[in-house]
Amino acid sequence: MQKIITLTTDFGYQDHYVGTMKGVILCHNPDVAIVDLTHGVTPHSVLEANFVLRGSYHYFPAGTLHVIVVDPGVGGSRRILYVEKEGYRFLAPDNGVLTEIVESPERLISVENRGEFLESVSSTFHGRDVFAPLAAKLCAGLDPEELGPPCADPTVLDWPAPDVEKGSVVEGCVLYIDVYGNLVTNIAAWHVSDLGGEPLVFLKGDEIGTPQRSYDSTDLGRPVAIINSFGLLEIAVREGSAARAFKAGTGDEVTVAVS
Amino acid sequence: MQKIITLTTDFGYQDHYVGTMKGVILCHNPDVAIVDLTHGVTPHSVLEANFVLRGSYHYFPAGTLHVIVVDPGVGGSRRILYVEKEGYRFLAPDNGVLTEIVESPERLISVENRGEFLESVSSTFHGRDVFAPLAAKLCAGLDPEELGPPCADPTVLDWPAPDVEKGSVVEGCVLYIDVYGNLVTNIAAWHVSDLGGEPLVFLKGDEIGTPQRSYDSTDLGRPVAIINSFGLLEIAVREGSAARAFKAGTGDEVTVAVS
Amino acid sequence: MQKIITLTTDFGYQDHYVGTMKGVILCHNPDVAIVDLTHGVTPHSVLEANFVLRGSYHYFPAGTLHVIVVDPGVGGSRRILYVEKEGYRFLAPDNGVLTEIVESPERLISVENRGEFLESVSSTFHGRDVFAPLAAKLCAGLDPEELGPPCADPTVLDWPAPDVEKGSVVEGCVLYIDVYGNLVTNIAAWHVSDLGGEPLVFLKGDEIGTPQRSYDSTDLGRPVAIINSFGLLEIAVREGSAARAFKAGTGDEVTVAVS
Repeated sequence: MQKIITLTTDFGYQDHYVGTMKGVILCHNPDVAIVDLTHGVTPHSVLEANFVLRGSYHYFPAGTLHVIVVDPGVGGSRRILYVEKEGYRFLAPDNGVLTEIVESPERLISVENRGEFLESVSSTFHGRDVFAPLAAKLCAGLDPEELGPPCADPTVLDWPAPDVEKGSVVEGCVLYIDVYGNLVTNIAAWHVSDLGGEPLVFLKGDEIGTPQRSYDSTDLGRPVAIINSFGLLEIAVREGSAARAFKAGTGDEVTVAVS
Repeated sequence: MQKIITLTTDFGYQDHYVGTMKGVILCHNPDVAIVDLTHGVTPHSVLEANFVLRGSYHYFPAGTLHVIVVDPGVGGSRRILYVEKEGYRFLAPDNGVLTEIVESPERLISVENRGEFLESVSSTFHGRDVFAPLAAKLCAGLDPEELGPPCADPTVLDWPAPDVEKGSVVEGCVLYIDVYGNLVTNIAAWHVSDLGGEPLVFLKGDEIGTPQRSYDSTDLGRPVAIINSFGLLEIAVREGSAARAFKAGTGDEVTVAVS
Repeated sequence: MQKIITLTTDFGYQDHYVGTMKGVILCHNPDVAIVDLTHGVTPHSVLEANFVLRGSYHYFPAGTLHVIVVDPGVGGSRRILYVEKEGYRFLAPDNGVLTEIVESPERLISVENRGEFLESVSSTFHGRDVFAPLAAKLCAGLDPEELGPPCADPTVLDWPAPDVEKGSVVEGCVLYIDVYGNLVTNIAAWHVSDLGGEPLVFLKGDEIGTPQRSYDSTDLGRPVAIINSFGLLEIAVREGSAARAFKAGTGDEVTVAVS
């Protein structure tokens, strides 16, 4: 079986940055399979990259190495982390992008051995000069212990959690807006079910309704609340864009109340 | 030889949806080669996805499995189809995206056996939970007969055909606008040649001229009509955008007349 | 080891053009690995494609075949070139996109033998009909000598070089703007170091400062000049967009002066 490396970056699709990373990986390990998780993370958005990673890393084969390069501190003093958890491996800057993943890991290493980097390391493109050769070599059998010492204090983000008043209301927010304009919230399915009773969803005070089973539970162009495929409450417009319809952005208030 | 799966979706390139689908495919079949046909289909545009598929499926090796997830009815009552035709295989929602392909197929099955889906199936992301594992398993040798019963009444789109007045004029429309702003019409090369005589192309009443052999048959920035690489009449602007120059959109009228 | 083909085009990510090229490649050579260098080149921008290629081709394994289809003259009289240099191979239209690469090549051939193209060649999509089958066959062992005769007069671009007044000032310009809004100039690291003394960078007359070691040498939202990972002077805004902050475009004047 081929070894798998996934790439998650904010490099976008205009430039040659992702392609160049792949060239370096293949130079050091021609037998690896490289999968783009996404390169569409909003530039510098560590929170968004963490959201994307959390929702998808466990859908890959065990042993997959997930490489995340959303790295506004590139070239500065931030550390680089290698993590093993639940049979998966992760390589990323230590800026919070591995929040939740660095909780009770099986292995957590601060990468300090520059001997496995490219010979010449720029201060602006560690994806190419550091992450790519490391990932390739780790998939070719490099012992992670050679990368550096254990790390005890990884950076974690202050992830926005909803306010819960048990049995009456959950106050959360829009966390992520996808390509369809669906508004993904930080309110989980269990927040809603814990409320008991008939839940009603509100976006910035506007009533959306009770969570439905699927998008086609409403008419074309009408809003619908739904528990999405990542187990989170989502507000959508059927075959339309909720972001446009409600002029909504990340951080906007979403509440669930029982009547 | 590796088995090939192509993916055609409206998932875009911002989110992790395509990447997650690939993870699930690789979990169930590590030996498959996955090719992105495109993920840039306009959200929910079944017609556009059908256009894209028609023009390209036969450029892949025989045996290729084409998976199309443009699926506004996800989670609802729409069926899922598995089709074999001309040595190719197709897996898609039964919403018209396989129009023309479901005509005289060698095999046409309604996928009803949930035993090959992921264990937990969401109502919003069948690309990951249904199409990905099915595609992986079909390429690993799963007998399509096990997916469900034959289907006799697939959904087909009312594909916009041009009006032809034999020997005098063809009235069609802009069907698709590509990244260059080229206006691809629903008028085929044979519609034009059937007219006989010297054909003149008009866009919304403006004369474009006689179809030329290549883009450089006109000056930089000037419009040109051409029979494109998919055998369709196209209106372009040399090293420019016809969509911008003519403020043109899909559905705009294009006519060909003989003088 | 798998043979590697990279693709660099201005096809973008909306259409099925790149996917179709890959289908044709796999028809003629199922064992090749295809890597997207980028498809985000500005439509018809030969200069931009050349810039992208120069900065990345040597990060791939020796023997890699780089295919570039930024080809506004498709279907016209422009030639197609096959080049070998520094252990790499290149296939591209003869429109200047291989500038610098065609200087002192090990082999330079004008592709004239239509016998290796697809049977039916359109005049608008040589990526699919010409470049894809040629690339696939070259990686399967086709002798380049069979493609056509040597070429002695390849097209080269008038690449914008900075004006250097030794020991006092370098006058260059913005050459490329990346997805972050970083302004990449045509001023190389050695232009700056050759000046001697303390260099000061100006963008359209505004003082940016002395080149720093990394982006975090300045405060969030503040501009910084830096030698980037391709050895070129770049003007950035920390975790922001220099293009937006300075309303800058390609061609804008950048100067470096010593005090």
